[in-house]
Amino acid sequence: MRERAIPEATVARLPLYLRALYDLTERGQQTVSSEGLADAAGVNSAKVRKDLSYLGSYGTRGVGYDVEYLIYQIKRELGLTQDWNCAIVGIGNLGRALANYKGFGERGFRVGALFDIDPEKIGERVGELAVEDFDDLERIVKERQVMIGIIATTAQAAQAACDRLVAAGVKSILNFAPTVLQVPDSVSLRKVDLSIELQILSFYEQRKVALDSIRGGKRLTASASRSTRP
Amino acid sequence: MRERAIPEATVARLPLYLRALYDLTERGQQTVSSEGLADAAGVNSAKVRKDLSYLGSYGTRGVGYDVEYLIYQIKRELGLTQDWNCAIVGIGNLGRALANYKGFGERGFRVGALFDIDPEKIGERVGELAVEDFDDLERIVKERQVMIGIIATTAQAAQAACDRLVAAGVKSILNFAPTVLQVPDSVSLRKVDLSIELQILSFYEQRKVALDSIRGGKRLTASASRSTRP
Repeated sequence: MRERAIPEATVARLPLYLRALYDLTERGQQTVSSEGLADAAGVNSAKVRKDLSYLGSYGTRGVGYDVEYLIYQIKRELGLTQDWNCAIVGIGNLGRALANYKGFGERGFRVGALFDIDPEKIGERVGELAVEDFDDLERIVKERQVMIGIIATTAQAAQAACDRLVAAGVKSILNFAPTVLQVPDSVSLRKVDLSIELQILSFYEQRKVALDSIRGGKRLTASASRSTRP
Repeated sequence: MRERAIPEATVARLPLYLRALYDLTERGQQTVSSEGLADAAGVNSAKVRKDLSYLGSYGTRGVGYDVEYLIYQIKRELGLTQDWNCAIVGIGNLGRALANYKGFGERGFRVGALFDIDPEKIGERVGELAVEDFDDLERIVKERQVMIGIIATTAQAAQAACDRLVAAGVKSILNFAPTVLQVPDSVSLRKVDLSIELQILSFYEQRKVALDSIRGGKRLTASASRSTRP
């Protein structure tokens, strides 16, 4: 096993590079410079080179990185060259949307079980799966070797769902519920905040509004001076 | 108007600090060191100090940053001290989940309109709103001063939805559809990939699996050597 310390911040940027690289392949681009990848991923190019050097990837001077090979290297590093079995807990609108989300399967995350406690939902088909009873969690997690639990319950139900997943042996939890969860140190926990990207948009929108009002102000001044000096 | 150049990467980290700071307030913590904030946000502490210096925030030696005041400064910087009107286009499972997502309102993003082209959905209530006809987009965007368009359509329908939003004057687009969209330079576009956090989990899960197999191997070796040297 390779034992290198990749900084956490680098790990968090690898999926961004991967997304940018997939976009490049969709446009038929076969090589990319560190500047090109930096632009596409919203990171500076020195950081791109540094991050990729942890993967043993240095590109070729004057050519850049081979897109397909870099995709392979990042996928290998992130553990995406194998499939991961996931289970979704809480089959409301968000749980259904996640169950049908094509992007998971494309990245190697196979949703293999859907759980709810509501008797009206149990047995209902969502995509290719039937919703199963949350009471059967332990057995199904073991049978299907579920590695990652995705929590899409209400905020109130999330900690109980999380505790049951952990007790069943699930070591990675992705939390979509708008609440802070507690897990033992041996369990990895990530939280998705769907408003993060909106906040980044807000920053740029705010600047546009400010710039527009400055431009508006200038126009007013210009026409005012024109009217006083005909 | 303040004219400072905040790096794009810093802008992208501000929402992560904000999320971490809200978590700290929920636990009743009133001050935080750059190291504490770095840990909570998954960034290194030198970067935290540098990022926050762009906001004119330097903390107090031996005390750290005042959590409430730092929340205010980041919100002001991100333009979150005002409300932004958003419209969601595409009211499938994801659109419904987003329409009901409490996290948007808490961060100042007010969903003021829901659009679909499906006559069966138009008029249906989702949360506090009724779904409206996508054909009325231009009028409603102007009447309600929609600033941000959230696309939750299928991949196939996303570019057309985006073009109509841009034509109606919307300058910021958040894309949840699993496809690459084209917008004019004057429009800000961000894409949400719901599998990003799963990929980060995968990295850590993979390492755990590898470590477990090493430990398993060591145990085997240890018991083997024990059995050969009784």
